[in-house]
Amino acid sequence: MSELRDLTPLLKPRSIAILGATPDHRRVGGRPLPFLTKYAFPGAIYPVNPKHQAIDGVRCYANVGELPETPDMAIIAVPAARVLDAVRDCQDAGIPAMTVYTSGFAEMGGEGVALERALKDMVAEKGSLLCGPNCQGVANLNDRMCANFSTTLGYDDVAAGPVAFVSQSGLFAGIVAADCHARGLGIGYLVSTGNEVGVDFADVLAYAAADDRIRVVAGYMEGVRDAEKLRKAALVARAHGKPVVILKVGRGAESAAAAASHTGAMAGSYEVYRAAFRQWGIIEVDDITELFDLVELFSLGAPSSPGDRIGIVTNSGGIGVFSADKVGELGLRMAVFSPETRDAIAERIPEFGSPQNPVDFTLQAFSDPASVGWHIRHVVLDPNVDAVMVFFGVQMLNVAELVEEIKQAAALNDKPVVVCWMRGDPEGPKAFRAAGIPCFDDPLRALKALRALVTQGRIAATALDGEPVSATSATAAAARVAEAAGARLTSLGEQAAKAVLAEAGVPVTRSVLAGDADAAVAAAEKIGYPVALKVDSPDIAHKTEAGGVVLGLDTAAAVRRAHDRIMTRARAYAPDARIEGIGVHEMVSGAVELIVGIKRDDAFGPVVLVGAGGTLVEVMKDVELRVAPVGRAEAEAMVGALKCLPLLTGARGRPRADIAAVVDVIERLSALALAAPALKELDINPLMVMPEGEGARAADALITLVVEEE
Amino acid sequence: MSELRDLTPLLKPRSIAILGATPDHRRVGGRPLPFLTKYAFPGAIYPVNPKHQAIDGVRCYANVGELPETPDMAIIAVPAARVLDAVRDCQDAGIPAMTVYTSGFAEMGGEGVALERALKDMVAEKGSLLCGPNCQGVANLNDRMCANFSTTLGYDDVAAGPVAFVSQSGLFAGIVAADCHARGLGIGYLVSTGNEVGVDFADVLAYAAADDRIRVVAGYMEGVRDAEKLRKAALVARAHGKPVVILKVGRGAESAAAAASHTGAMAGSYEVYRAAFRQWGIIEVDDITELFDLVELFSLGAPSSPGDRIGIVTNSGGIGVFSADKVGELGLRMAVFSPETRDAIAERIPEFGSPQNPVDFTLQAFSDPASVGWHIRHVVLDPNVDAVMVFFGVQMLNVAELVEEIKQAAALNDKPVVVCWMRGDPEGPKAFRAAGIPCFDDPLRALKALRALVTQGRIAATALDGEPVSATSATAAAARVAEAAGARLTSLGEQAAKAVLAEAGVPVTRSVLAGDADAAVAAAEKIGYPVALKVDSPDIAHKTEAGGVVLGLDTAAAVRRAHDRIMTRARAYAPDARIEGIGVHEMVSGAVELIVGIKRDDAFGPVVLVGAGGTLVEVMKDVELRVAPVGRAEAEAMVGALKCLPLLTGARGRPRADIAAVVDVIERLSALALAAPALKELDINPLMVMPEGEGARAADALITLVVEEE
Repeated sequence: MSELRDLTPLLKPRSIAILGATPDHRRVGGRPLPFLTKYAFPGAIYPVNPKHQAIDGVRCYANVGELPETPDMAIIAVPAARVLDAVRDCQDAGIPAMTVYTSGFAEMGGEGVALERALKDMVAEKGSLLCGPNCQGVANLNDRMCANFSTTLGYDDVAAGPVAFVSQSGLFAGIVAADCHARGLGIGYLVSTGNEVGVDFADVLAYAAADDRIRVVAGYMEGVRDAEKLRKAALVARAHGKPVVILKVGRGAESAAAAASHTGAMAGSYEVYRAAFRQWGIIEVDDITELFDLVELFSLGAPSSPGDRIGIVTNSGGIGVFSADKVGELGLRMAVFSPETRDAIAERIPEFGSPQNPVDFTLQAFSDPASVGWHIRHVVLDPNVDAVMVFFGVQMLNVAELVEEIKQAAALNDKPVVVCWMRGDPEGPKAFRAAGIPCFDDPLRALKALRALVTQGRIAATALDGEPVSATSATAAAARVAEAAGARLTSLGEQAAKAVLAEAGVPVTRSVLAGDADAAVAAAEKIGYPVALKVDSPDIAHKTEAGGVVLGLDTAAAVRRAHDRIMTRARAYAPDARIEGIGVHEMVSGAVELIVGIKRDDAFGPVVLVGAGGTLVEVMKDVELRVAPVGRAEAEAMVGALKCLPLLTGARGRPRADIAAVVDVIERLSALALAAPALKELDINPLMVMPEGEGARAADALITLVVEEE
Repeated sequence: MSELRDLTPLLKPRSIAILGATPDHRRVGGRPLPFLTKYAFPGAIYPVNPKHQAIDGVRCYANVGELPETPDMAIIAVPAARVLDAVRDCQDAGIPAMTVYTSGFAEMGGEGVALERALKDMVAEKGSLLCGPNCQGVANLNDRMCANFSTTLGYDDVAAGPVAFVSQSGLFAGIVAADCHARGLGIGYLVSTGNEVGVDFADVLAYAAADDRIRVVAGYMEGVRDAEKLRKAALVARAHGKPVVILKVGRGAESAAAAASHTGAMAGSYEVYRAAFRQWGIIEVDDITELFDLVELFSLGAPSSPGDRIGIVTNSGGIGVFSADKVGELGLRMAVFSPETRDAIAERIPEFGSPQNPVDFTLQAFSDPASVGWHIRHVVLDPNVDAVMVFFGVQMLNVAELVEEIKQAAALNDKPVVVCWMRGDPEGPKAFRAAGIPCFDDPLRALKALRALVTQGRIAATALDGEPVSATSATAAAARVAEAAGARLTSLGEQAAKAVLAEAGVPVTRSVLAGDADAAVAAAEKIGYPVALKVDSPDIAHKTEAGGVVLGLDTAAAVRRAHDRIMTRARAYAPDARIEGIGVHEMVSGAVELIVGIKRDDAFGPVVLVGAGGTLVEVMKDVELRVAPVGRAEAEAMVGALKCLPLLTGARGRPRADIAAVVDVIERLSALALAAPALKELDINPLMVMPEGEGARAADALITLVVEEE
C-alpha cells in the first residue's frame, strides 16, 4: 500500500471503451461519446452496448470481448447491480484502467457497502487503475481526452491549459471548470475521484504535478484514505516545484457526518489535516473564492515571493488604509520604502497623493498612466519590497496603457505583482490576465493571493526535515509498551508510564511508588521535602478531580495524613479502580508547565503534540501538533508557534526556559510513537520546563494502549 | 457639542449655489452643474464665478451677494487659499449649508492644519452646516440632488433607492455607488464627509436613518470625532429599525498612520471601536465584499432572522459539506429538521440526494424545479429552522421557474431566504434580486449575509441597557480621586487606590500599610497568617519585577525577613521611588484571578474592562471591554464572553465562582469612570473571585490620574 500509481492508461489512454453507452444524452452513459468527440479525442472510441449497432454514427459493440483492440481505459456507466460484471469483463479483456460513473455504493449505506467492498477486492486483486465509483470521471484536456461528464464541459468549450483539479465532489469540479472558463484559464486535468476504491486523490495529485504542462494542482478534499500516499504525492509536487492548493471540507463533527453520506465516511481530526498540510508544503485555503483565486494566480505563473514585505500602489487613500490593515491581519508586513524610492515617486505624484507605502496616486491613472507605471516600477525595484499589489477603483479609462505599464514593471525582476481592479471597465481583468498579471476584484482577495505567494516561497525555501533522532532509545521503550500490550493492559499508570519515558530518554521527576503510609514517609525522606503525593491508578485519569493529589508536604506527619486522605477519597471516587499505590514525588519549582504527548489519528496515524499546561490548557486551545516523524526544525517550529511562548522566552524578568530540552522531548516522543504501534495515547502533563540549561522533566504521565481485537 | 444636526438644508436644498463653477468638466468645479442637471435637480442652480457670464447656458454670478435668492446650500470648489473667504461670503449671505470639495487642509499637515482650525472656528461660530473640506460632496438621489462629483455618478445613470452610504473616503463612496449600480440597487444618500470640520459621519447616519425611503445606512469609517454623537446616531437608527453597517479601517498602528495622512488624524483604539459598535447595535463588517453584500441584503428588505438555526438546500453535496463547516465557524448552527420535514422532502428527492440538512437535491433543478421548490418550502416552514440558504452551482436552466419557486417559499413567513448562484446562467442574480431575493456568488458570502440577519435580529430583540447602578458611592469615590488630582498626584499606590475602591463599593482584601518591620509583624498578627507583603509605591507599577512581593508568610520571623528584603530590593530597583511603606495583605485562597479596570480612550472616553488574570493575562488576549456606561446586562455579557469563563463556571469539579460579584464590580467601575474624569487608568490586578456567594475582592490596585496642563 501507499505506493503512488502510474496513471497513464487512465489519464492518457490511447483508446477508450464506453460500457453502457447510449444515444440518450440526458443519461450519463450518453455523454462520453459526444464529449470525447467535442474535445477531439485523437484515439479510437468503442461504445459497448448490446442494444445498439451504432451510436451517433460510431460502431457499437455488444461486449468488451468483441473489441478490435484492447483499449487503455473503459468508462463504465452501467447500473450499480451490473458494475462488478462489467469490471470483471474489462479485467478479463486486459483493460488496465477504468472510470466508473455509477452511484449506489458505500455512499448509499446498506447493500452499497458490501457491493463496494467486493469491487475494492476485485480492483486490488488485479491491480486495476479504477477511478470511482460514484464519480463524474476524468479529463485531460491537454491531450484532448474528456471522459468527465460534468455539465460545464458540455456547455462550454473549455480551453486546455495549466490547471489540474482533483475533486472528491463531482459537481464541485464542474464549478471550478466554469470558474476557470470565465476567467480565461485553461484546464489540464479535471478528475472527480468519487469513492476511491482504487485510484485516489493522492495518485492524481502526483501524476498531474509531474506533468510539465501543469503549473498548479488544486483540489477539493473531504478526507484522505491513505495519508502516507498523500505525503509522497506532496513530495512529488515539491520536487517538480508545483504549488498544491487544497480546500478541505468536513471539518466539524456535523459537516463530517454530511461528508460521510456524500462520498463515504473518512475519519481523522481536522486539526491533524491542517498540521499535515503545513508540514508537507500543501497550501490550505479557507474558502472557495480563495481556492479559485489561487488557481488563477499559480496558473498564470506568478512567482513565489522572496519575503513578506508588501508594497501597495492605489488610486484610493481609503483602500490604502484598508489594505494596510489587512496586510497585518494576514501575517504580512507593510514594506518601508527606501528614501530613493520615496523621492522618485514624489517627483511625479499629484499634490494630494502620497509617495509613502501605501502609495496614493489619486486620479493620476485617468490622465497620466505613464506616471502610474513610474510609481509601480520604483516600488518593484525597491530592495525593501518583496511583493506588490496595485489597486484601481472605478477606473474607466486607459486600460491598455495601464496593463502595459504593469507588465513592464512586473518584468523588471522576479517579484510578484498582482492587480485589484474594482468596479471599473469590465475589460480590465481580461486584459490583465491575458498579459499574465493576476487580477482580482477585491483588495483582500489580492492580498490573500500575495500571502499564498509568500507561503509558497517559504515552502520552496524550507529544507525537508532530516531524519529524526536515532530510535535506539525508542526501541527499548517500545518493547516495554509492546510487553504491556501483550499482557492485554489497556493503560499504564503514572509510574509505569514514567518508566517507559525514562527508557525513551525523556527525563522524569524522581518518584517512588509507596504501598502504605510508612513507605510513603520513607520515600519522602529519601527524595527530600517538600514532596507531592498522588494516587497511582491506571483507572483514574483525572487524579485531581478524584481528590488524589496533595502538593507541598514538608513533614513526615503531613505525608502520613495525606496518604490516608488520598486513599479514602480515591476509593470513594472510583470503588472499582485498581490502585497501584500512592506515588511520592519530587516537587519542582520555578518551572513552566507544558503538556506534551502522542495521539493516534484515524487518518494520519501517530501525531505528536505540545501545548500550554496547567490552568492554561483548559481555557485556551494552545496546542501545536504534527504528524510523526517530527524532526528538530519542525519541533522547534511547534514550540515557536505556541501562544504561551512568552512564558518560555523569559519575558518580564523571568528566566529563559530550556526550550532545547522541550524540542528534545518532542523528537523522542515522535520516535517512540513510530516505534510503538501499540501506544494509542501518551500524555505528559505537566512537563516541567526548567530554566535554560537545566532541562525538562515529566512530572506526570499516562499511557493508553491499543487493544487488539481477539 | 454632541448634538445631532438637522441636515435638511445640506441634503434636501431647495436651491444651490456653486462657488468656483467652471465650464471645464475635468475640474471638480466643473462637475456639479452637469451632475445636478443630469439627475434633474428640481430647484434653482446658481453658478458663481466672476470670470464667466454663463456656464453651459446657465447664468453665472460674480459673487454670492448678487444671487436673486438665498440658496439653501453652496458648493465650494475654489482653491484652498480662498476657501475661508468663500465660506464667509456664504455666511454673510445667510446660506445655512455648504459643501467644500477643496483639499489642502489638515490632511496636508503644515499650513493646512492652521487653515482647517480657522475654518472650524468660523463654522462653529455661525453654526453653519458645512460638509468637508477635502470631500467629494453630497448626493440625495431620491430628491434628485447630486452635489457629489464621484466619477461613478458621472459615468452611470445611478438609480435612486433605499441605500444610504456615508464615507470618510471619497473614492470609496464611488466604488460603492458603482457596485450598487452593477447589482441593480438604488442609492438614496451618497455622502463623502472629508475632514468633517462641521457635519460628521454621525450627523449623516442619523439623518439618513430617519428617512422613510432608506432601508440601510452603511459607511466607511477611518475614525470617529465625537463618540457620543455616534452613539446617539446609532440610537436614532435603532429607533427607526434601520440596520447600520460599518467598515472601520485604520485598525493597526501602521494603517492608522496612513489614515492620518489621508483625512487627518483620529485616535482611539480599534478594540474600543469594536466594543462600541457591538454595544450600540452597529454591524461591523470585516471586508469590502461583505460590506457590499450587506448593503444588497438590507436594501432588498431582507427580514431579520429570529434565530441562528440555518437550513441549507443545495444541488451539490460538496457545497453542503463546505457550508456546514462555515455555519459552525460563523457562530451559527445547522438546523435539525423535524421528522415531518424530512419525510416530506424524502418523498420527492432523487435517489442519490439527501433529505437531511443540508438537503442535496443533486440534478433535480435541471428537470424538476417544482420539486426543488417543494423542498425549500418545507425547510422554510420547519419550526426548527430560522433562516435558509439555497445553493445552485453551474445551473444553466430554468432560472425563471426557480426564482418563482423561491419567491413563493420566501413569502410563506418572515424567515430570511438567500440564494447562492455560482457560475451558472448569468441572468440568475439579476432575476433573483429583481424578485427581492438577495443573491451571492459564493456560499460563504451567502452565509455571512445570514449571519448579519441573525445579528440584526439580536440587536432588535435586545433592550437597551437600563440606567447603571446608582452613582452615590461613585460620587464619594470620585471626590477622593478629584482631591488627589487637585494635589497634582500622577498616580495612587495600592493603599490609596484600594481606599478609592472601598469608597466606590468594591470590596478589597484586608491590608495594612506598615512603616517598618515591627509594624509589619503587628499587622500580620492582626490580619492572621499567612500574609503577603508588598512594596507600596506610586512609582513602582510592576511590584513583582521590582522584587517587591513576597507571598505566603506564616511566622513573625518570616514577615520581618521579607520586610527588610523587599525594602532593599525596591531601593535598588528604583532609587528615586517614593515608598509609602510595606503593605501587609490578607492572603486569599481558592479564588479565580481576574483583572478588572478602567481605561480612558482618546476617542470614546472611559472604557471598562475585565479579563483573565494571573499568568493568563500575559499569554492570551482574554479581555472584554465596553464603553461606559455599562449596565448589568452588558456587564454579564462581558464576563460571559471571556475565554477563561470555564474557570468561573465550575468546570472540572471546581466550585462555581461568584460571577454576580464580578458583574457588580464592573458596574461600579463604570459609574466611577463616569463620575471621576480625573481618573485616567485603574487596574485591579488581581480581583480575587471567591466561590459563589462569597463575593470578590480586589487584592491589588493601581490608579493613574489625568495631569491637567497648567
